[in-house]
Amino acid sequence: MINIGIIGYGYWGPNLVRNFFAVNGCSVKIVADSRSARLQELRKIYPTIKAVNDGNEIILDREIDAVIIATPVCTHFKLAHKALLEGKHVLIEKPMTSSVEEAEILINLAEQKNLLLMVDHTFLYTGAVQKMKQLVDSKELGCIKYLDSTRINLGLFQSDINVLWDLAPHDLSILSYIVDEQPYSVNARGITHTCNKIENIAYLTVNFKSGLIAHFNCSWTSPVKVRMMLLGGDEKMILYNDLEPTEKIKIYDSGYSYANDEEKNQVMVDYRVGDIHVPKLATTEALLSMANDFIYCIHEKKQPRSSCYLGLDVVRILEASNESIKHQGKEVVLQASKIPIAFNSY
Amino acid sequence: MINIGIIGYGYWGPNLVRNFFAVNGCSVKIVADSRSARLQELRKIYPTIKAVNDGNEIILDREIDAVIIATPVCTHFKLAHKALLEGKHVLIEKPMTSSVEEAEILINLAEQKNLLLMVDHTFLYTGAVQKMKQLVDSKELGCIKYLDSTRINLGLFQSDINVLWDLAPHDLSILSYIVDEQPYSVNARGITHTCNKIENIAYLTVNFKSGLIAHFNCSWTSPVKVRMMLLGGDEKMILYNDLEPTEKIKIYDSGYSYANDEEKNQVMVDYRVGDIHVPKLATTEALLSMANDFIYCIHEKKQPRSSCYLGLDVVRILEASNESIKHQGKEVVLQASKIPIAFNSY
Amino acid sequence: MINIGIIGYGYWGPNLVRNFFAVNGCSVKIVADSRSARLQELRKIYPTIKAVNDGNEIILDREIDAVIIATPVCTHFKLAHKALLEGKHVLIEKPMTSSVEEAEILINLAEQKNLLLMVDHTFLYTGAVQKMKQLVDSKELGCIKYLDSTRINLGLFQSDINVLWDLAPHDLSILSYIVDEQPYSVNARGITHTCNKIENIAYLTVNFKSGLIAHFNCSWTSPVKVRMMLLGGDEKMILYNDLEPTEKIKIYDSGYSYANDEEKNQVMVDYRVGDIHVPKLATTEALLSMANDFIYCIHEKKQPRSSCYLGLDVVRILEASNESIKHQGKEVVLQASKIPIAFNSY
Amino acid sequence: MINIGIIGYGYWGPNLVRNFFAVNGCSVKIVADSRSARLQELRKIYPTIKAVNDGNEIILDREIDAVIIATPVCTHFKLAHKALLEGKHVLIEKPMTSSVEEAEILINLAEQKNLLLMVDHTFLYTGAVQKMKQLVDSKELGCIKYLDSTRINLGLFQSDINVLWDLAPHDLSILSYIVDEQPYSVNARGITHTCNKIENIAYLTVNFKSGLIAHFNCSWTSPVKVRMMLLGGDEKMILYNDLEPTEKIKIYDSGYSYANDEEKNQVMVDYRVGDIHVPKLATTEALLSMANDFIYCIHEKKQPRSSCYLGLDVVRILEASNESIKHQGKEVVLQASKIPIAFNSY
Repeated sequence: MINIGIIGYGYWGPNLVRNFFAVNGCSVKIVADSRSARLQELRKIYPTIKAVNDGNEIILDREIDAVIIATPVCTHFKLAHKALLEGKHVLIEKPMTSSVEEAEILINLAEQKNLLLMVDHTFLYTGAVQKMKQLVDSKELGCIKYLDSTRINLGLFQSDINVLWDLAPHDLSILSYIVDEQPYSVNARGITHTCNKIENIAYLTVNFKSGLIAHFNCSWTSPVKVRMMLLGGDEKMILYNDLEPTEKIKIYDSGYSYANDEEKNQVMVDYRVGDIHVPKLATTEALLSMANDFIYCIHEKKQPRSSCYLGLDVVRILEASNESIKHQGKEVVLQASKIPIAFNSY
Repeated sequence: MINIGIIGYGYWGPNLVRNFFAVNGCSVKIVADSRSARLQELRKIYPTIKAVNDGNEIILDREIDAVIIATPVCTHFKLAHKALLEGKHVLIEKPMTSSVEEAEILINLAEQKNLLLMVDHTFLYTGAVQKMKQLVDSKELGCIKYLDSTRINLGLFQSDINVLWDLAPHDLSILSYIVDEQPYSVNARGITHTCNKIENIAYLTVNFKSGLIAHFNCSWTSPVKVRMMLLGGDEKMILYNDLEPTEKIKIYDSGYSYANDEEKNQVMVDYRVGDIHVPKLATTEALLSMANDFIYCIHEKKQPRSSCYLGLDVVRILEASNESIKHQGKEVVLQASKIPIAFNSY
Repeated sequence: MINIGIIGYGYWGPNLVRNFFAVNGCSVKIVADSRSARLQELRKIYPTIKAVNDGNEIILDREIDAVIIATPVCTHFKLAHKALLEGKHVLIEKPMTSSVEEAEILINLAEQKNLLLMVDHTFLYTGAVQKMKQLVDSKELGCIKYLDSTRINLGLFQSDINVLWDLAPHDLSILSYIVDEQPYSVNARGITHTCNKIENIAYLTVNFKSGLIAHFNCSWTSPVKVRMMLLGGDEKMILYNDLEPTEKIKIYDSGYSYANDEEKNQVMVDYRVGDIHVPKLATTEALLSMANDFIYCIHEKKQPRSSCYLGLDVVRILEASNESIKHQGKEVVLQASKIPIAFNSY
Repeated sequence: MINIGIIGYGYWGPNLVRNFFAVNGCSVKIVADSRSARLQELRKIYPTIKAVNDGNEIILDREIDAVIIATPVCTHFKLAHKALLEGKHVLIEKPMTSSVEEAEILINLAEQKNLLLMVDHTFLYTGAVQKMKQLVDSKELGCIKYLDSTRINLGLFQSDINVLWDLAPHDLSILSYIVDEQPYSVNARGITHTCNKIENIAYLTVNFKSGLIAHFNCSWTSPVKVRMMLLGGDEKMILYNDLEPTEKIKIYDSGYSYANDEEKNQVMVDYRVGDIHVPKLATTEALLSMANDFIYCIHEKKQPRSSCYLGLDVVRILEASNESIKHQGKEVVLQASKIPIAFNSY
């Protein structure tokens, strides 16, 4: 039985509690939040869970085996670092940390202490992303040529992170999960419409040596909510619309091919429009699968699907996007990781 | 009676012929196309129009008052220049020319010879764009903060121009028409998936000193057709979906406001979601209104809505986007025009 | 403090418990369900609620003031009757009873014993239906000419009631709530595709003396889910699409008018297409408002919005639809109620 | 070369002229319309076609081989009858005639005179209906259980026929084309909102002995345009949305099955939700295919897809719907045809 403590009972906290309640082999023991009103809310529904004001109580609790960190991003590193030092397995909400340096320190520490460090990129556990991964791995799409994501709505302006750090982690985790190739560079432009210098609209391009291009359109100031991703291969293409209740994934048997017309000294491109297929997707709640993966990987000493290495990939792109925005959109080449990329066990 | 000759009877030519047929005060006399099959098509439907192989026949014809150029972009300058020299009024399909320099020479020549030079940015004559213009001018949207356009489909790869030059002129003409402020700079990234170095996917950001940002997502390789523009003011926002048969424009009474919370040393942002209004739009065919504007402006010696100055604005941004793409997306500052911006008469 | 017992913890039961938990002035004390697995589920989440196997325990419990009946329709009458006899206020899930006779007996008993008898037609408490009611009452739609509802999906075939009794009560309650006029007659046709003689597709027309017509298309065998209602006045019309996340109600400023052209001996009809308005709707959970209404009306001795009289109206139409289906769709005239139609207090 | 005359140059006439122009093996010689303005319109575009005021000129013209009748329904019989008597092949716009009796007289006359009599049910020539027919014939849908059609919009109120005669022929022709079984009976209810007693909203149910049910919802007074048909088999189901630009047909691999649970004395129904398939459809203009079929069948002495026998089937249902509406929706059993159902040659 893994005893769990959760730090942070804000927007996402109740979902974490509810789902870890449903996972076998673990028990939610303590929840911490500095806001008394939030704890009162917790007690009303879960009278059996201990409610405390200070996350450190959880970290220092001898009975606790694993700590889940669902607090603002700027606090992730300090809490996770302390928890790892105290010998706890750690699950951090996305994005993992505020910088690549912080993420690398945590990863090194977890490896050294033989503990599981995981990042909650919930989307990787959805039926839609699983289907996309499977279609890419089976080469059904052919060679991947582009990924184009729009994630916009009239949303809560965050006061500590910009719109890319808030919204893009979902899509960047999907990119990292689906595409094998390491990205080469990024360009980003953004704009702030308040006086706090935090971008509320931003555009990010992630460039790859192979010719793959990925683009991310993020905004807190769109009157309509859009959650749409296009993934284009040279044989088939996918439209992933997360707002569709059931038809989230459409596979288009459409594509293009080209040939050199030497006579005319021209490239001739042909496109092909074919059938569309809408696969039935698994309907398990993604957060439950994520929670199961965390507990399973602690027991089995394995690396989860949504690993800290993938979490670091996401932070690396986000950090570079800051740099590009600061320099009016100029290309920023990504640093190679100091950390080996993939592990099967921790 | 204005006698008209049309050079180029490809995809757009038949629409031009049909609409100029319906305009009072002008007469379509000659159509030129180098492809005999196209001329045969023309003769079948319009036995009364003279069909010739060489556009120069039109330009040199004494009876012709105005020449419409609907040929590939790279031929625009030469044909228009010759026609102006011969004293003809000229209407050019978008984009106006292949470079700012060419556009400026044509404008200077037209001014000097007291001839009308117009660019066919048809979208400016749609009920949807007219409604947007009116809402911006009446300050109903408040201060414009962003324009975000997606124009993607599985489309014909052009062999002489990239996807931005092919698709973005529509949206750039709307930007130029609706927004008073001159853009400051652009960033663009693109990718080619063929071996001819012509981008088939490209992303363009147009930056303004005031904090307005405009973004254009163009692709020939999307399995779904999208024609969507968001125009956000700080009081209301517009969603313009050109694929909707009747509900093309939705006005969202949504927005956000912010205040400094000095105690917490934070900016507090509030957003507001209100009603949506879908105005009934004028349903006149846009191309017919454009054709009417051309003939009307020749008669009245006025500048049309879709003027050569607006056409030049569009080419200026496109040319700068080439430069930015060539330099991996770096910011390219736009040159000030050598030509005075607005005219009421020619 | 009103002490509440809930009989039936199936599909809807958990929603009832959760919402009555959130209502002030009442306390959920006991829940009954004959299925042990369901009670176990209850205990896991609500350890403080007493769980019993037999609903009669609730009915006979001296501490209980009000009984909520969420069991199959065929059991409604017996349970409600007993509860009223025991002096409990009663809330019944829709449809109220299996017959008009049963409903009338319950109403008479409740009146006699001075108890509140209410039917849970939840839809009456949605922001969408509230908006429709307000638009009708304010005469903004003009004179109501038709109501057309489609409620279809691939759904659970019920084993005790046909598709009209299962799905139409929602729409019939809206009809009864919105329209003042009493319906005159019904026609219904249905078909069963199993061997149990229970219709899984049925069409119901409700006719009014004034010329208003209402039509209901219900099916358990549609591959797509549709929840759409059109409400047409002679000045404006409403499209109510319950599957839209936010834009559930669209008000069309469209209509038609007609005049006699005596010369041609013809009626000339003109139609008008105008703007569309999408009002922002209240977002309170409907079931919570219903629960509040129940408790409020017990305290205040008032009749709720979703009263037993409205519940009887719905059952009267359903009973007549059975008769019409049995006679191949012939018109069945509705019997006048033996019960005065409206009450302000119980 | 078949010489063609067209009587009626109203809404549909120009489409007929344009398409028969494109058919090989025939020549449009004369068009008749009593309205001079319409003839002027014709002359402007087609100076080579003879324009006359009186349809009889066409019928009596020795040069004319085939007459197309595109006039109000009430005139169909008289014109077609005369044309057949004069030895012309005849194509009539849908619906064929105002009564079964008229249709049968025409069919008998055509058979007797060895002439082609065809009805223009254009929808039978669309890619969508062809795909549906193919899926039904190949048994991919299993056994057909229901057809449910909604065809509503804010439309032109006709002054001679009600909304069923105006809109339902499209859907009834599809029903007749796709389903082999002869319908047994109909029920219909309608309402008129003007004083001319012509229904502007009507609901029609067509019943079959096998348990198949077909339902048609037609209205001229809906603020939204809907063109939707569901076709349900016990193995797969089709959603046909004619307003979708490309994804008109969706095939749902969804269904239900049932078994007798003898222990519980109950029928247990299971439903299954699977993948969706959106086939690419043929994109030839339907009206052109129809025109080709007419000319081809004259040459080859064959019966066309949209034959007069199918046209009679449609009129038989419409006539019965009148009877049912007159008797408040009572079931009207369809008379067996006096005419053998299918022919391969004329």
